[in-house]
Amino acid sequence: MTETPPAAAAILSQALPYIQGLRRQTVVVKTGGRALADDKLARQIAGDVVLMHSVGIRCVLVHGGGPQISELLDRFGKASEFTEGHRVTDAESLEITRMVLVGKVNRDIVREINRHGPIALGVSGEDLGLILAEQRDPELGFVGNVKAVNPYIVEHLLAEQLIPVISTIGADETGQAYNINADVVAGAIAGAVDAVKLIYLTDLDGLLEDLSDPDSVVAEATDTRIEALIEDRSIQDGMLPKLEGCLNAVRSGVGSVHIINAMTPHALLVELFTDQGIGTMITMSR
Amino acid sequence: MTETPPAAAAILSQALPYIQGLRRQTVVVKTGGRALADDKLARQIAGDVVLMHSVGIRCVLVHGGGPQISELLDRFGKASEFTEGHRVTDAESLEITRMVLVGKVNRDIVREINRHGPIALGVSGEDLGLILAEQRDPELGFVGNVKAVNPYIVEHLLAEQLIPVISTIGADETGQAYNINADVVAGAIAGAVDAVKLIYLTDLDGLLEDLSDPDSVVAEATDTRIEALIEDRSIQDGMLPKLEGCLNAVRSGVGSVHIINAMTPHALLVELFTDQGIGTMITMSR
Amino acid sequence: MTETPPAAAAILSQALPYIQGLRRQTVVVKTGGRALADDKLARQIAGDVVLMHSVGIRCVLVHGGGPQISELLDRFGKASEFTEGHRVTDAESLEITRMVLVGKVNRDIVREINRHGPIALGVSGEDLGLILAEQRDPELGFVGNVKAVNPYIVEHLLAEQLIPVISTIGADETGQAYNINADVVAGAIAGAVDAVKLIYLTDLDGLLEDLSDPDSVVAEATDTRIEALIEDRSIQDGMLPKLEGCLNAVRSGVGSVHIINAMTPHALLVELFTDQGIGTMITMSR
Amino acid sequence: MTETPPAAAAILSQALPYIQGLRRQTVVVKTGGRALADDKLARQIAGDVVLMHSVGIRCVLVHGGGPQISELLDRFGKASEFTEGHRVTDAESLEITRMVLVGKVNRDIVREINRHGPIALGVSGEDLGLILAEQRDPELGFVGNVKAVNPYIVEHLLAEQLIPVISTIGADETGQAYNINADVVAGAIAGAVDAVKLIYLTDLDGLLEDLSDPDSVVAEATDTRIEALIEDRSIQDGMLPKLEGCLNAVRSGVGSVHIINAMTPHALLVELFTDQGIGTMITMSR
Amino acid sequence: MTETPPAAAAILSQALPYIQGLRRQTVVVKTGGRALADDKLARQIAGDVVLMHSVGIRCVLVHGGGPQISELLDRFGKASEFTEGHRVTDAESLEITRMVLVGKVNRDIVREINRHGPIALGVSGEDLGLILAEQRDPELGFVGNVKAVNPYIVEHLLAEQLIPVISTIGADETGQAYNINADVVAGAIAGAVDAVKLIYLTDLDGLLEDLSDPDSVVAEATDTRIEALIEDRSIQDGMLPKLEGCLNAVRSGVGSVHIINAMTPHALLVELFTDQGIGTMITMSR
Amino acid sequence: MTETPPAAAAILSQALPYIQGLRRQTVVVKTGGRALADDKLARQIAGDVVLMHSVGIRCVLVHGGGPQISELLDRFGKASEFTEGHRVTDAESLEITRMVLVGKVNRDIVREINRHGPIALGVSGEDLGLILAEQRDPELGFVGNVKAVNPYIVEHLLAEQLIPVISTIGADETGQAYNINADVVAGAIAGAVDAVKLIYLTDLDGLLEDLSDPDSVVAEATDTRIEALIEDRSIQDGMLPKLEGCLNAVRSGVGSVHIINAMTPHALLVELFTDQGIGTMITMSR
Repeated sequence: MTETPPAAAAILSQALPYIQGLRRQTVVVKTGGRALADDKLARQIAGDVVLMHSVGIRCVLVHGGGPQISELLDRFGKASEFTEGHRVTDAESLEITRMVLVGKVNRDIVREINRHGPIALGVSGEDLGLILAEQRDPELGFVGNVKAVNPYIVEHLLAEQLIPVISTIGADETGQAYNINADVVAGAIAGAVDAVKLIYLTDLDGLLEDLSDPDSVVAEATDTRIEALIEDRSIQDGMLPKLEGCLNAVRSGVGSVHIINAMTPHALLVELFTDQGIGTMITMSR
Repeated sequence: MTETPPAAAAILSQALPYIQGLRRQTVVVKTGGRALADDKLARQIAGDVVLMHSVGIRCVLVHGGGPQISELLDRFGKASEFTEGHRVTDAESLEITRMVLVGKVNRDIVREINRHGPIALGVSGEDLGLILAEQRDPELGFVGNVKAVNPYIVEHLLAEQLIPVISTIGADETGQAYNINADVVAGAIAGAVDAVKLIYLTDLDGLLEDLSDPDSVVAEATDTRIEALIEDRSIQDGMLPKLEGCLNAVRSGVGSVHIINAMTPHALLVELFTDQGIGTMITMSR
Repeated sequence: MTETPPAAAAILSQALPYIQGLRRQTVVVKTGGRALADDKLARQIAGDVVLMHSVGIRCVLVHGGGPQISELLDRFGKASEFTEGHRVTDAESLEITRMVLVGKVNRDIVREINRHGPIALGVSGEDLGLILAEQRDPELGFVGNVKAVNPYIVEHLLAEQLIPVISTIGADETGQAYNINADVVAGAIAGAVDAVKLIYLTDLDGLLEDLSDPDSVVAEATDTRIEALIEDRSIQDGMLPKLEGCLNAVRSGVGSVHIINAMTPHALLVELFTDQGIGTMITMSR
Repeated sequence: MTETPPAAAAILSQALPYIQGLRRQTVVVKTGGRALADDKLARQIAGDVVLMHSVGIRCVLVHGGGPQISELLDRFGKASEFTEGHRVTDAESLEITRMVLVGKVNRDIVREINRHGPIALGVSGEDLGLILAEQRDPELGFVGNVKAVNPYIVEHLLAEQLIPVISTIGADETGQAYNINADVVAGAIAGAVDAVKLIYLTDLDGLLEDLSDPDSVVAEATDTRIEALIEDRSIQDGMLPKLEGCLNAVRSGVGSVHIINAMTPHALLVELFTDQGIGTMITMSR
Repeated sequence: MTETPPAAAAILSQALPYIQGLRRQTVVVKTGGRALADDKLARQIAGDVVLMHSVGIRCVLVHGGGPQISELLDRFGKASEFTEGHRVTDAESLEITRMVLVGKVNRDIVREINRHGPIALGVSGEDLGLILAEQRDPELGFVGNVKAVNPYIVEHLLAEQLIPVISTIGADETGQAYNINADVVAGAIAGAVDAVKLIYLTDLDGLLEDLSDPDSVVAEATDTRIEALIEDRSIQDGMLPKLEGCLNAVRSGVGSVHIINAMTPHALLVELFTDQGIGTMITMSR
Repeated sequence: MTETPPAAAAILSQALPYIQGLRRQTVVVKTGGRALADDKLARQIAGDVVLMHSVGIRCVLVHGGGPQISELLDRFGKASEFTEGHRVTDAESLEITRMVLVGKVNRDIVREINRHGPIALGVSGEDLGLILAEQRDPELGFVGNVKAVNPYIVEHLLAEQLIPVISTIGADETGQAYNINADVVAGAIAGAVDAVKLIYLTDLDGLLEDLSDPDSVVAEATDTRIEALIEDRSIQDGMLPKLEGCLNAVRSGVGSVHIINAMTPHALLVELFTDQGIGTMITMSR
């Protein structure tokens, strides 16, 4: 490390107020299944979350697991059929999905974090009534929408300075489980726990102005702009649930939502503790 | 309900002191995978646990899942090989085992309990360092022993009047997961959380004096008697880990351990709240 | 005890939700002097109250003492004269009444309860300003009405998990004592301490539809029905103050008032913890 | 009031440190039945106790009632027979004694104090196991010794800034009541509640050097001197239990015991808040 | 001390209710620089404040220091010029004023109090933003008005049973210090900390009806009378800021303001704890 | 700010564990009068302390004021005479010293910090008995040693998340003030408040190996080495009290003492939050 003291001093002077400002604030981080499938990247994300936690930020992790689910379904010889971006899910697929998310992807994140100390706990939407679900569309089978969030366990773990890692299986009033899109859940939870920030770690550099130009990242956008984009459908595939989550979050009082590239080294730290903005930031219009 | 008041009054007079005595006391219940595979029985056990919880008993559930694991391994075309009652477990089998226990069996119990209200939370041994494991025998692969129990999360959930439902996957210091026998874990946890009772819900009427005579149930036994039985190996197959759990528990201060038949209607209520003893009770010799 | 397990299990399954529902709730029990004069009955009532207390019910006992007062007045050669059910009370009679209630009847109940452990404390309406009284009618002498209840000491003892046993001597602002009907006081206290139930242990099976027919017990009645009965005066002698207490209680938010026969074995337990209703239950009309 | 300011200032300067020193300290005051039989004197004593309480002293009152008991026994036609200063007490006499102490004398003190506000609560030795008694001598009948004091309720009331007024009826393990000498009980309670002072309000000016000379008051004495006096029996009649109480108290850690004349105007205030000592002070010898 | 007990008892009986009434109440005492310049008087005032504190009064001391400031300015060869009773204050004079008030007068009071125990802490208006100031008049230089009081530190010290001793240097938003009249600050602080009394210890016997007649002390006055006096300007020199402070205080809810002569022996004790009023008392008109 | 993200990320990854490790830890910073005399430097030091405070470090500032004292003594025409590095201090010099330290230097630091918010409070050794002093040597006059530290007020302010700024005037049991070397006081206070670090901000780059070679800074030293240096007297002038403070601190449990150059930009931040050591670090030898 050859950083000269003056530079370090400048970076620290800049970072400390951010660190102060975020202490005891809640930040929800959503990571996709693809980033988690890369062991080294998964380890770096876990490490950054531990650092955030170490300076007093209340961190919540919400994870997806698309590629992992597809792989297990394949092994079971079940073809995945998608309708408007949602995987049609019969009872057996749901059971497999639940096993993968709760019994594998979630476990792997918890393990990576707990290598730094016993601070992470896996939670699924069925635990303590965290996510009340309802069926989205009979044709999709056991794919759910978020009907309500009961943030009790999440807030409780945060108050104990622990890190909840959330799988997005919800249950309806009868106990029937549903698979719910993790981007959408992340937005609902961020709103429910009064997060100041919701950060989507994706495989894109942000929201693109022009889908064909990867350099056309939108630096900032308001909820009205996002709403227009959703109506235009002029957005990347897979970005739609993120934008729904964004809208839900900022309209529930979350200060800002960020869509950033999980591949940027220590993307979370740069986003949170420097003046440099990366990716796309969405806030409420005034 | 045709019970005449005098009988009800007598039963109540008898039960209330037990209820008083068990309030705010911790009872660990271990249920095997076989009982849980029977939907109706699983539902009754969950209901009894909710009743216990309702009168202030701090309940911990520890579950196994042998039949369920075998079934999924079969579907993956992996033959189960056993050595001295332990399933030889390679990396892939471990991943499958973890998915079944954490992502399926645990989920099903949590769901059954939470139908009565949001009071159950699934926890695995990897969460918050609950179970520190070590390899039992290199030949068995990822089969572990309990090296230490960190009961923080269990005690914390109990203090919040919640019901932890525990899957018995532990992790060593490097984060490597191991499958651990649930009977053994139940004993270790009962000791670590200062339980007054540990109840094994099994498919037997208790410990048999004479293996060939199902009516030869031993009503009471001390730890020294149990130790002798273990050395003699004069015990039923599969009973060994239970007895190890028993010894560990009573020697860690658990008041009594009970081996009872899960098929007895409301076995938990009868055991806890009436003068009638069922199954086998193990205590410390004086 | 020959109760078979299934029956016990059924009664327990039924009772546990009642026990849960009543935990930390307050129940006021009023016992008349006649029941207390029977040593065996007094002992059973004390025992039932201790059981109620043992499962977390906050119990308040209010007692009368008519026969005991009459006896002592007789020994002092003072004839008891009654006007509309109230004993005309001169200064000396008041002093004797107070000695009997506070110094004898109350003491006997406290002793019976404390045989089970140091949990009962005798309190009189003069202590800490519990019952502010005013003269009812100059012709009756030192017979009082309840002007106000200051429940501080009662609530405080309940919060300490103790059982207050209350004698119904009140005092006015100058410190002048008055004897007040215990049925009326019980209703006022039940309202003041937010009791969920007020139970009158009497020597009748309940409120009778037809005074000449002891089997014509009214199972349930609303406050408006009770009000009509009071106006009609179509009620048993001595029942009037109970009904005034009832009205006062349910209109102050007490969930239900019960008039039951103290002679029924374990009447309190049957009333509180089984589906079987006994005696008369009075609630607010909707 | 013609006191000139300088004198008032001097008295206040002197008194304030005493007031500071006694704040949150416990002082036990024992008053005999004779002083309480004088309405005006009883009222002044109650007033002084209220003033003590008002400046933060934790006050406990223990009362006797000899003359009042004798009077009621007379009315019942029961002759009082004394053996070595103790009244022989049969079952009926005990019941009468209890009625007088708990139901009359105690009540009168509570009333006088509560005229200043709801701060006094009557307590008897049977309440919450306050005084565990044992029979003193079978020939004396139901006359008891103090076997143990459970100060819970007294300390609890003091912590709530209330004034316990204590009748000295104790009970043995079976609930059997006994009458116990109030001077002795006062000493035992003062020790049990860590009182700094125990004050006996008597009808004498203190302990006399020479029984025939009322001016021979002993100003100060140590426990060894008191012990010698007890052995010599060279003390006034009725002084013996006081001296036993003294010894018990100072040897249990009570700072000083004072025997003063209840007839001295505001004797309690003069004793506690001025440099002027009155009566006899007993302390531990060093 | 030759005070006979009855007189002492009478004074104590009178004083105790005042002592009770003032416990946990806040009293602000303002002492001028002249009284503090007299070592013996300063010591007596400190002693009286310690006595007040000892009986539970929450005491705040606010001090001036005019003579001391003049003396140091003289030594520095700086002439003091006054405009309408305010000392024109340039930057150097402000620095000297601050050194004298904070570094000398305040220190001397703290020392005198702390001779009785570690209970006093010097605080200046710049500490923790206690006094937000603004310039009074550019011609006066660094002479300030009170713009706002942030009583946090004062209330906090009072809650810890400590005595804050306050120097009246305030600061504006930029950190620029100002000297502010101590009489005015005392009124503002008394209002901000919900004091029941504000006492000005002055070198006068009170507010005079007739400036030429020192016996014409006004015993009581209301805020409207004071307002009229201020408008008439018919008041003693130097009394104006006190009266402004009075008005501010009583209109902010302070019960009464007293202007008394610091030379009266133990003036504070006589004022607070006897029926005798001294000096002038100002209250709100009804 | 041209720092590229990767560098910032690296510095942050490095700094965050330090920030975590120091949260809720106490750091005592001693600044000399010379650094404080430079307005810009004083402002930067105050800013760095505010940043430290903002990330949860409990900061205590101890200040000197040599040049400022000399200047005022000069204006008063009092020559400063030094004996072994201590200024001979008569009564008048003491008063002037106290005025300068408490009324000027302390005030200026408090003002600089409070420009960032109301978080600093000036405290002197006389307040609440913080520093109990004793005379060092009669020939030196009112120059004191630290006899004891009562850290109550410092710990209390830290617990309230406030910054105490301490002037080093102590008082003996009679209230007599003494001037005490600030370096020595800093060491005593660091030990008394269980500080993890004590940092001396000086005008040197650290402790020099060779007094004639400014580049011969000793990077690390143990207490035994420091002790040897003190005995050898082979140290810079003015360094002696710092080394005494060092020894006292590390031997009282302070983790490390640092002597660094106040002129290094953001010296405190670089020292605390980077891997780069600057100046001299002293720790206990093992």
